[in-house]
Amino acid sequence: MIIVLKPQTRRTDETAVLKEIRRLGYKPHVMRGVSRTVIGAIGDEASQPSLESLRAWPQVESVTPVQKRFKLVSREAHPANSTIRVGKDVVIGGPEVVVMAGPCSVEGEKQLMTTAEAVAKAGAKVLRGGAFKPRTSPYEFQGLGEKGLKLLAKARKATGLAVITELLSEDHVELVAEYADILQIGARNAQNFQLLIAAAKTGLPIMLKRGLSMKIEEWLLAGEYVLANGNRNVLFCERGIRTFETYTRNTLDLSAVPIVKKESHLPVVIDPSQGGGRADLVSAMCKGAVAMGADALLVEVHPNPKEAWSDGAQQLSLEGFARLMEEIRPLVQAVGRQ
Amino acid sequence: MIIVLKPQTRRTDETAVLKEIRRLGYKPHVMRGVSRTVIGAIGDEASQPSLESLRAWPQVESVTPVQKRFKLVSREAHPANSTIRVGKDVVIGGPEVVVMAGPCSVEGEKQLMTTAEAVAKAGAKVLRGGAFKPRTSPYEFQGLGEKGLKLLAKARKATGLAVITELLSEDHVELVAEYADILQIGARNAQNFQLLIAAAKTGLPIMLKRGLSMKIEEWLLAGEYVLANGNRNVLFCERGIRTFETYTRNTLDLSAVPIVKKESHLPVVIDPSQGGGRADLVSAMCKGAVAMGADALLVEVHPNPKEAWSDGAQQLSLEGFARLMEEIRPLVQAVGRQ
Amino acid sequence: MIIVLKPQTRRTDETAVLKEIRRLGYKPHVMRGVSRTVIGAIGDEASQPSLESLRAWPQVESVTPVQKRFKLVSREAHPANSTIRVGKDVVIGGPEVVVMAGPCSVEGEKQLMTTAEAVAKAGAKVLRGGAFKPRTSPYEFQGLGEKGLKLLAKARKATGLAVITELLSEDHVELVAEYADILQIGARNAQNFQLLIAAAKTGLPIMLKRGLSMKIEEWLLAGEYVLANGNRNVLFCERGIRTFETYTRNTLDLSAVPIVKKESHLPVVIDPSQGGGRADLVSAMCKGAVAMGADALLVEVHPNPKEAWSDGAQQLSLEGFARLMEEIRPLVQAVGRQ
Amino acid sequence: MIIVLKPQTRRTDETAVLKEIRRLGYKPHVMRGVSRTVIGAIGDEASQPSLESLRAWPQVESVTPVQKRFKLVSREAHPANSTIRVGKDVVIGGPEVVVMAGPCSVEGEKQLMTTAEAVAKAGAKVLRGGAFKPRTSPYEFQGLGEKGLKLLAKARKATGLAVITELLSEDHVELVAEYADILQIGARNAQNFQLLIAAAKTGLPIMLKRGLSMKIEEWLLAGEYVLANGNRNVLFCERGIRTFETYTRNTLDLSAVPIVKKESHLPVVIDPSQGGGRADLVSAMCKGAVAMGADALLVEVHPNPKEAWSDGAQQLSLEGFARLMEEIRPLVQAVGRQ
Repeated sequence: MIIVLKPQTRRTDETAVLKEIRRLGYKPHVMRGVSRTVIGAIGDEASQPSLESLRAWPQVESVTPVQKRFKLVSREAHPANSTIRVGKDVVIGGPEVVVMAGPCSVEGEKQLMTTAEAVAKAGAKVLRGGAFKPRTSPYEFQGLGEKGLKLLAKARKATGLAVITELLSEDHVELVAEYADILQIGARNAQNFQLLIAAAKTGLPIMLKRGLSMKIEEWLLAGEYVLANGNRNVLFCERGIRTFETYTRNTLDLSAVPIVKKESHLPVVIDPSQGGGRADLVSAMCKGAVAMGADALLVEVHPNPKEAWSDGAQQLSLEGFARLMEEIRPLVQAVGRQ
Repeated sequence: MIIVLKPQTRRTDETAVLKEIRRLGYKPHVMRGVSRTVIGAIGDEASQPSLESLRAWPQVESVTPVQKRFKLVSREAHPANSTIRVGKDVVIGGPEVVVMAGPCSVEGEKQLMTTAEAVAKAGAKVLRGGAFKPRTSPYEFQGLGEKGLKLLAKARKATGLAVITELLSEDHVELVAEYADILQIGARNAQNFQLLIAAAKTGLPIMLKRGLSMKIEEWLLAGEYVLANGNRNVLFCERGIRTFETYTRNTLDLSAVPIVKKESHLPVVIDPSQGGGRADLVSAMCKGAVAMGADALLVEVHPNPKEAWSDGAQQLSLEGFARLMEEIRPLVQAVGRQ
Repeated sequence: MIIVLKPQTRRTDETAVLKEIRRLGYKPHVMRGVSRTVIGAIGDEASQPSLESLRAWPQVESVTPVQKRFKLVSREAHPANSTIRVGKDVVIGGPEVVVMAGPCSVEGEKQLMTTAEAVAKAGAKVLRGGAFKPRTSPYEFQGLGEKGLKLLAKARKATGLAVITELLSEDHVELVAEYADILQIGARNAQNFQLLIAAAKTGLPIMLKRGLSMKIEEWLLAGEYVLANGNRNVLFCERGIRTFETYTRNTLDLSAVPIVKKESHLPVVIDPSQGGGRADLVSAMCKGAVAMGADALLVEVHPNPKEAWSDGAQQLSLEGFARLMEEIRPLVQAVGRQ
Repeated sequence: MIIVLKPQTRRTDETAVLKEIRRLGYKPHVMRGVSRTVIGAIGDEASQPSLESLRAWPQVESVTPVQKRFKLVSREAHPANSTIRVGKDVVIGGPEVVVMAGPCSVEGEKQLMTTAEAVAKAGAKVLRGGAFKPRTSPYEFQGLGEKGLKLLAKARKATGLAVITELLSEDHVELVAEYADILQIGARNAQNFQLLIAAAKTGLPIMLKRGLSMKIEEWLLAGEYVLANGNRNVLFCERGIRTFETYTRNTLDLSAVPIVKKESHLPVVIDPSQGGGRADLVSAMCKGAVAMGADALLVEVHPNPKEAWSDGAQQLSLEGFARLMEEIRPLVQAVGRQ
């Protein structure tokens, strides 16, 4: 930690800070500058108590940590890329760019089976579909629940696709884990740490969406909750952050791809459907994501977006999805992936 | 709903839209403007399916709801101010500006009892203190849990203060409800709807903090989840939103006070400690909050902020809190409250 | 400056950094921590070249300045409050809370004279009115130009009010300075440094609005451009920042009041009309501003807001303004001002 | 325009609104819904006065424009892509992805000539370099001024590269126009409309950077100022917006590429150097930009970034730039461009 004292701090006030630094197990190192005194506190920030409480001291101007706060998700801890095995034979984080596709919500058997077959045929490897839906208003469709999970399992059996679906509640962990190959933690629950811990304990891969106003460091620390609870299978999914722009529902932060790849060994997924909230932008966003190094894409597809029960405006049609798969192929090749 | 068609939409494409509007139970009303056709869809948006899926139609430029999405929290539904009774004799939302104060985290008996006695003496009516703490990093202090709850109950008994404490997990609802007079839902869980529903069912007053990037409409709709589950005792607590500014940890949005008072009948609480993350700004923010019509304040107080286990930089000392109570008194009087 | 090296930096790479620090005139001071080496560079950051270019070095993890970048606007440079004399006998920054009021745009003689007389009668000391208007679209009303300035001068003569009006262009500096008592630099030009320098040279008081996405440090540095060009008469005006919230046009950041008062000796003005974009929030925002220590208020008033040529939705009527002056009086007294 | 009245509006208040709509030249069209009355005002919003002043009326809940506010920059006005000719033989907006490269600031002859030759050799077509620099602090290097312009002209002569440089002041328009092939308007001046108008009148291509907190509509309207003043040669340059994320200096909004290409016929440029503020992210961002359809890239290159006088951390070395050109080649081909 670096502690900067305010200008004209008296020597006794400085001594008190040095004493506190030592009390918390650090070795202080004083540098007298032109207008301020700076103290380096030498010690392991990751295992010792934080010195941030010094911010409350009137003679202290700032306290800055030196070490990164995340450990297990960090590339410092694990320099090589991690790969996550999903279901029987899908691997995320390896040479293949994996596409996960399916409807926003599971609405019924026909809708789901039609979509599953079409996306499998077009090259998707994982089927997405919400059975429990977090909705801004209590009056909106909240998902089919267990019935939806059963339909997902049926679609998996028929097509061989692995299944990803959202987990909303600690009380559903066992139920959802029974049917899913990947547990999705949504943006609204990205810092619901109790849910993260419960999900971690299933041992299943966890796809952690970035919260709407989560800094990358906070997102990595939320992932750290999963690894610290014994589950190394985390996928980080960027799905748009909240900004002042209103043209799109959210602003897809594609720079998160190279940044997370640099800071962490874990794979990065891009969700262009939530990211923009507009089907007409999905293709361009997928191309950008692939070019920038994303390991997987998560795309909303519906046999009839016009009649979808949720988020119709951002779902591709079956033909639209098949076209998308053609459009991204040259880019996947251009970056040397499959 | 208002549906705007793109320029040069063909008549058959317009007819398809009109048919869909009727299918979903609305009566369409066509207006031909200079460059675009606008369709008003007459019907009850609150009880009928949404027309937002029309956004996915290529001939549609925009879809705009006319009615507000929240109902039970709305002033349209309940024109008079609601008052919330807390514990035996505290009323929030009436003539009195209620002050809730106490440490960020419950750390031990001496810390809590000393604080409780001091804040009660200075005029606080509710004791705050976290027993379950949501922390950005898994390596930070996570709260004393049930032991913390028991200390809060003890402090209540000793001082007569009511108790507010945070609920983090559906699995803790019964436990926390046993000890608390108000359940706090934190900013990170503001759209954890399962937690909101579970909390609602206790019947206890719920203080719902605004999420870091929650629009006011979304916050009111999260409150709507509580009312729609049979609990009318909701307090809306503004505690700072996330912006680009880095001087403060968050940007306290004091305009939320008059806005929520205008849109809703429910009381508004301001948390200046989380809002700024700096003890030296708490007094000014409390004054602003009172002047703008806040019904209650939530202030972090610690007998020794320099040694607090969490968020030391934003907690007031016992003397600081007593001084604060003196400083806001003239403003409380100036706005005609107690 | 504090320079943190990456983990496992080789000694030769460290030596190169130390050499560069010395070359730029600083004395390096090395601290070896648990996982990283930290270098304190001792020297006057304000007069010597910045070390920030070290961020480009591959072995460097971060570079953090220790000193503040602003000097003349800083309270370190001038501990007492500065007062700004406006026109003959208005003083901003002293015990009086000064109210500046008038129409968004000067539209004509009758509109301006009626408003000027009404706001003077209600207690305003400065007349605002735009003669040159920056408009988002080239097709919107751009102001009456010099004709508007002449009307402002006429209203000043009739009422004794001082005049504040916006300066948009370096080419208008002489013209506007001839008629105005305070030059307003608008939010869109807050970092138009050439305009700031030109305005500074008139010697007139400059009211510098905060840019829509300006950090407080950047705003103070823009003010520094004025002082560094020989003009100490700067007023900082907060008028709302851009956030994700859409209920109001901007989010008025009232915490800017105590922060700027703490960091700088110069007065702070609050503009609640631009801040919220809604007349119905102006009163609450003015109360909050006064309670938090604002030195002046800038309020848009129009004899007939419904027919205003710009920003009708945020302008008060003459009666509304008179009422506002009554409403804020108890708060002005409660904070011990006039 | 669509005007929504508040619930329970009295008939006389409705009649007043209808009268005002007619007075301003529109034809009102009333629709009575379940809880609110909606009025469509038929008329040309682009040529008639706005109805937005109705927002000030107490009986009005909202006013929503139907037409887009920009005209000449719009694809509705000009369905085909526009191409912009720069210097003798560079065309932006056609099949070629044009690369503009060079130092942040012109620092001296050797620095500039070395860079110009290297970037020309690697395939750049336009040389960038700042002679007038807008700097956050008045104490930072402000550029070489005319001396810098002369060096740019010399480099153009030696290498055949066209020249882009920033225009900061209306007073420099003639001077800068004498040396530049493209005038850059920086982010801080993106709504300095007087500067835009002055620049437009030179007839030179204008590259308009997006302001830090500019909505896409506002950016297009700023471009509209140039076209409305008789200059059709506008390039829109995305360079990062301001968000809460602190890992990068700004958040590069790559979705601006498909959005601006959709709404406008004018070319889009991406500036990854300013966008992230970090040289190590430039390559990934360029790849994303090309994949998503950008027409040109603007890259900061310096012979020795470690010793740059401004923004060293984001400038590529000469070798780094040559490598970048190799890395993006496969992506340029994958999207069918040159």
